[in-house]
This record gives sequence, structure tokens and C-alpha cells, in this order.
Amino acid sequence: MDFISLIEKKKQGKSHSKDEICFIVNSLMENKVLDSQISSWLMAVYFKGLTDDETAYLTQALASSGVTIDFGDLASLIVDKHSTGGVGDKVTITLIPLLAAAGIPVAKLADRGLGHAAGTVDKLEAIPDLNTNLTIQEIVNQVKNINAVIASQAEELAPVDKKLYVLRNITATYDSDALLASSIISKKIASGANNIILDVKYGSGAFMKTPEDAVHLSKLMVKIGKLLNKSVTAVVTSMEEPLGRAVGNSLEVIEAIEFLKGKIETGDLADLTYYFAVTVLMNMDIYDDKAEAERYLRTLVHSGKALAKFRELIIAQRGNTEVLDNYDKFVLPAFKVECESKKNGYVQYINAFNIARAAKILGASRENNSAPIDLSVGIYLNKKSGEYVNKGEILYTIYSNDEDKTKIAQKYCDEAFSINDSKPCHKNLVHTVIGTKDEEDDV
Amino acid sequence: MDFISLIEKKKQGKSHSKDEICFIVNSLMENKVLDSQISSWLMAVYFKGLTDDETAYLTQALASSGVTIDFGDLASLIVDKHSTGGVGDKVTITLIPLLAAAGIPVAKLADRGLGHAAGTVDKLEAIPDLNTNLTIQEIVNQVKNINAVIASQAEELAPVDKKLYVLRNITATYDSDALLASSIISKKIASGANNIILDVKYGSGAFMKTPEDAVHLSKLMVKIGKLLNKSVTAVVTSMEEPLGRAVGNSLEVIEAIEFLKGKIETGDLADLTYYFAVTVLMNMDIYDDKAEAERYLRTLVHSGKALAKFRELIIAQRGNTEVLDNYDKFVLPAFKVECESKKNGYVQYINAFNIARAAKILGASRENNSAPIDLSVGIYLNKKSGEYVNKGEILYTIYSNDEDKTKIAQKYCDEAFSINDSKPCHKNLVHTVIGTKDEEDDV
Repeated sequence: MDFISLIEKKKQGKSHSKDEICFIVNSLMENKVLDSQISSWLMAVYFKGLTDDETAYLTQALASSGVTIDFGDLASLIVDKHSTGGVGDKVTITLIPLLAAAGIPVAKLADRGLGHAAGTVDKLEAIPDLNTNLTIQEIVNQVKNINAVIASQAEELAPVDKKLYVLRNITATYDSDALLASSIISKKIASGANNIILDVKYGSGAFMKTPEDAVHLSKLMVKIGKLLNKSVTAVVTSMEEPLGRAVGNSLEVIEAIEFLKGKIETGDLADLTYYFAVTVLMNMDIYDDKAEAERYLRTLVHSGKALAKFRELIIAQRGNTEVLDNYDKFVLPAFKVECESKKNGYVQYINAFNIARAAKILGASRENNSAPIDLSVGIYLNKKSGEYVNKGEILYTIYSNDEDKTKIAQKYCDEAFSINDSKPCHKNLVHTVIGTKDEEDDV
Repeated sequence: MDFISLIEKKKQGKSHSKDEICFIVNSLMENKVLDSQISSWLMAVYFKGLTDDETAYLTQALASSGVTIDFGDLASLIVDKHSTGGVGDKVTITLIPLLAAAGIPVAKLADRGLGHAAGTVDKLEAIPDLNTNLTIQEIVNQVKNINAVIASQAEELAPVDKKLYVLRNITATYDSDALLASSIISKKIASGANNIILDVKYGSGAFMKTPEDAVHLSKLMVKIGKLLNKSVTAVVTSMEEPLGRAVGNSLEVIEAIEFLKGKIETGDLADLTYYFAVTVLMNMDIYDDKAEAERYLRTLVHSGKALAKFRELIIAQRGNTEVLDNYDKFVLPAFKVECESKKNGYVQYINAFNIARAAKILGASRENNSAPIDLSVGIYLNKKSGEYVNKGEILYTIYSNDEDKTKIAQKYCDEAFSINDSKPCHKNLVHTVIGTKDEEDDV
């Protein structure tokens, strides 16, 4: 088998056999193929696609390219949640302690963020001393001990996916559904999860701009999961507006803690956290009634059990638990600027992309792979869509370490808000769910 | 300007500006772009194409990426001929001395062959001691002295085209018209030619399989030439069958010498050589009547002037002129095998691709860029299409250094011949001419 003919084959829109896909992944693993050849193959895949079978072969081969985590007796129960990335998305940090408190073993292996959103690992590191660089044995032990772990994706897991990921980013071949799906699912398989719940986001603050694109990718991932005997559920959600009120690393963790303390019972963050948790309980046949499942989950929050679980996680990962009771223990910015509304009216819409740009200007996310992140800075949305604001009332707050950057950020934030007299309609956050027993469940 | 956005732009089918094309070529020149990025861009170009303007910008930028040959006073007259490559194609070796004998300065800068055909430079090196590695100054001087040179493409000419050429070959992006056209024309511009005549071949023994593809590429090259103020004429010719009777390096040079001696007056090799020479004389307004031009050219052959010019060229390039009178001075193979026809009938067709495979097996062309060539081996077609053969009469002869290879070659050759009772129709060699005054001239 030679690589040029494989590129030619894909260029002509033909399908690869399982052996050919394995050859491609093995060539990458053994550094036997030139980056130039992989890159032209990636672009051919962008234009000609992969069949579901090819995508499943690729997913399996990527997962098998390194170590696979074995949770032993717990294996069939392990849950992992993945979000395709959004602005202010701290649902992983609210959901994992909640599910663990419900007795479900959750192993969340996360990437650092690229592009305009910081990753879960970045956010969690806003808790002083907290360690996310765990060995595989530490990950397994922690799940066995306390049901929950949030760790960096270990180097040994799906190493070829990491190589491909880097190449896809520099060759503008990131946005191929087949490549996206195989990348996401392969990592979950390697990390030992059998129950995978995906938050596939669309909108101004997401990688995918339309619900149709998100649904398409979701269906593909669920299908690939089935072909590989994994339970995959994809929840397609809107990322037109930031999720919750906080955008920025420390700020988002504080908001997640507020939720776990029971202080945020309504609104998009609470809705989505409960929605995901209920979906998991239903999928795992722990409940067969959604309302009942949600009531149970809310008692876990009100009783302090979810927060206690997060405390256990912080202790296990050697973080400073004082942050739970004293938010001043987080890394703090030099100053904050409270920005007032210039008119009366209902907030109609807050453009997530503009808020993300503002947060990036402040330093809350990366310019590139190796760039540092300022954990202290960010934006707090004092008003969200559907809320009324009076002229002169605080609309949002900027947390910053730099006067000039603050001015630019403020300009983006002002552009992000639409305010007028009429009360806006309620917008559904969840567009579609794919891969549950009651398939295609519009909410 | 960053490269990822340029790839993204082409991926979306948008056009590059002149500045963007220059940026791409400069990045390659200064090694400031990764092979992976150029390669994914090449594949995006394969799928989305380049506009004529983009192709002209690329051609000019490639030509300017290194040294350009300046022939001084002669510049406007310099002719270069290029063939897209075929089986048994020795027309460059017959044409250059003929044109030079007609007083036209011809500077043929040639590549070595890749794929199933050896290049003109390879063939010419079958003449012992002949040197094709000339400096630019030597090339200029030789044209000024004797009107003719056939040299290897110097390293300093269009160096970025060389880099792209290597990448196109390993990434299966060779067959993009825009990339092919810019590669061919940029080299000719860098080598100082103002009158470019192209043999664009199609058929079983050519890179392009259909006349439509060859016409499309030809129109593009003529258009690019016009945009860059060069006179480009493209002759679209059939390469369904080998050209002439000899395939293999020494054998082809011998056949070319036989033509220059006036011993081959009819048939495809003579027809095509005169066709190209007449086209050049007409294009340069030296003749305005084709028949008259051809009569003049035939006197140059019959009088020995064309052969004398070839002798001058060999002397100038320090080759052994004894080969002209004694073919045993060429490198000779260990043995020859005369293969008989298994039936009576007219040769209907000789498949060029199969003959090329046979020649390659024998060692007459390269497996890869650095592989050696056996100059002595090849195939001689004792019978050509339209000729009658009796059972037992010699159909073709194999010149070889290896018994086993000979057997495989013989199998391919036998498969190449179709023989039956009816006399086949005459097939036109020239399909279309593009870029002459009497445009679209079907012959």
C-alpha cells in the first residue's frame, strides 16, 4: 500500500477499506508518512468525506493508537461528557459533581481550550494548587474512590489523534464532520467511557454556526458510537448567547460553585445542567420519569451533596478548598469596571461571539497553542436576555488587569447587547437530542 | 497575511489576490510555510481551481522566484518547445537541429523524465560524454554561437516551481490544470523563451487521457501566455500509440539521427517534426504558406544541414560525434530478442501504455526520482499501425540486459498489439492547434 494512491483514491471520492484506514493511522503512529501527504489527504477528506464505516474504522484506529483506560468492574458505568465548546460554558464543572453525587462514576478527560473558548482544564486550574495532570492509575483510583475526576487528556491516550488534531488546525481541515466525529469519539473510547454524552453547540459563539450542521455532526457521532458498541447521546444546544452570567476562568468556576450551593436554581446554566443530568439518569435506566429524576437531582444540590462531591474532587486533586467559601482565594484581577446601560428596555440578545472576543482581548483565552491564559479576567453579565434594564443600571462588569484592553473589550461588549422595549420570546436552549431511547426529542 | 486563512479561502472557492499569490510563492521561497500547509492548499486548488488571473499571477511569481535567462538581442526570437510527455517521443531531438538549421535560435531546457517516460535530457545522455549540465552563461553563449542548445533545467531557474513539483508528485495533486499550466509556462518564461511551442498529448501513453482534457489545458496555457505577453502555441496530439518505432533512450536517439539523415521521410515522427517546425516558421512570419515552409524544411534535411547542426550541438556539448556514423558507439544492451507475429493481418493499434510498461520493466525509465536509467534497453516496433504483418514475421524487437525482465516485457508488448484482417483507417495525429493566427486548426 502506498500513500500517494490512498490520497488519489480519496481525491476521486472512493472509500477506503478498513485495512487502508489502519495503514493511514499506523503510518502516522510510526512516523512513516510525510506531513505533506497526510495534509493533502485531510483536504481530500474535507471535500469528499468519509462514509460512516470509514469514520468508524478511523475512530477505532485512533482510539487504539495508544493506551486505553480500563476501569475494571466500573467500566460499563463510566460516563464522560464532552462539549464542542461555547462561551461561558461551565456545565462540565456543575454536572460532574452532581452526577457523582448521584452515584454515577464520571471520568471527564478534557482538553485545554483552543480558539476563543478556554477549556475545562484551564478553568479548573483557577482553583489554586488544583492538579489536572493525573496519571492513568491516579485517574482510575480517583474514580473508584470518589466517583469523579476531571483531568487533562493524558499524552498516552489516542496519540495519533493528537497529531492529526495539530495538522487539522494548521491546514484548515478542522471542520470536516468525519474528522471531528472520529477525533471526539476516539478520545472518549480511549479514556474508557461507555456512556458518552455530548453537548453539540451551534450559534454565534460556537464552532458550528447552524443547528443543521450541529445535528448532522451529532447524528454521525451517535452512529459511529453504535457501530463501535458505545452508548452515545448528543444534545444539540444553542450557543447564540453566553451560557450563564460569567465568562472567564475564575469567574466561571465561582458561578459553578454558586450553582452547586443551590443559589442558581433557574436560568440557562441550571436548565442545561439538570437537562444533561436527567438525560444520563434516564439513559442508564436509573429513572424512567424525567420530572422525578430532576426532583432527585435538585435534592442532591439542596442537601449540599453535590457541593460536597466537588469538595472531595478538589481535595483528591490537591486543590485549595478554601475557594468554596471564600472567592477571594481565587486569583483576582487588578480592577473591575461596572458598565451601565445607555437605555431602558429588555435585553433581546447578547451576541456570544462578541463577548468571547472581549474575553479574549482581556486575556481569558489563548491566541495560540502555547500562549498563556490570565485566569483572573473576564466579563460578568449583570443582565441576561429577557431581563429588563434601566438606563444607568449596571449591564455588565469587566474584570481586567489592563486599562487599554478594557476599553476595547467594552466596545465589543456594548456591540454584543441588543436592548429594546418589547419583551423577547423565550428561546429554547436544547434544539434536538439524538441517541436516547425517545430519539429526536425536541425540547 | 497568514497561511491558514489563505487555505481556508481557497477551500471555500474564493479567488486569491495577486498579493496573496506572491505571498504564497515567497513563503515557499523563504521556507516560511510548512509543507503540510502548502499541501493542503494544493489539494484545495485541485478541487476549487484557480482563475486565469490567479494562474497568471502564480506563473509570473514562479518564474520570478529565481534567475531569468537573458538572451540579449536574440531574446525576442528565442524558441522553446515542450512536450507533456509521451512514449517514444523524440521530436525535441529531431526538431531543435532542424529549426536551428533554419536560422531560428532554440534554447531547449528540459527536465529529466518521471513516470513511465524518460526525459529528453536522459535520452540525449545516451550519446557518450555529452554534457547537458550547462551553466546559464554556457547556454546563452551556445545559442549565440550555433543557434541551438539542449540543457538540463538549471537549479537557479524557477526554484519554487521545483519545490511545488516535488510536493505535487507526493500529494496526488499533480493533475490540476492550473498547477500544470503555471509550472510549464513559468519554467519557459524563466528560461528566456518568447516563442513557446507546446506538444500537449492525450491518450493511453500520455498523462491526460482524453483530447478534451488536453484541449482544456492547452487553452489555459495559451491564455496565461497572452496575459504574460508571451507567444504560446499549443498543439494537441494523440499519444494513443508510441511515436515512431523506437522506445528507449539509445534507440530513440538513433531513430532521431535517421530522421536527420533523411532516411525517415514519412510516418508519425516525420509528420509531427515537420508539423511543429512549420508552425514555428509560420508563427514567426518567416513563411506564410505551410507547403512552402515544409518544402524548405525538407531541403534542410536532404542537404544534410539539419544533421550538421546536430553535430555542432554534440560538439558544443562535448559529446562523441562518432555515434552519428557508427551506432555501435552508443551504450549497447547484452542481447536482443526478435518477436514474431502469431498471426497474419494489419496492425490496428499499438497500446502506448503497455509498450511504456514493457520499456520501464526493461529499465528504460525511472521507478522514482533518484532511480538510475538503463540507456541501452528498449523496444523497436518493426511493424506500426496500418502495416501488414505475416505470421512468423518480426513484429517487434526487445533490447535487454535481463532474461526475466525480457519475458515480462514481451507479455506487455504482445498485449499492446491488435492485429486483424481489415486495413485500419488513418488516424490524425494532430487534434487541434491553439494559439496560432489561424486558431483552432484541425489537421
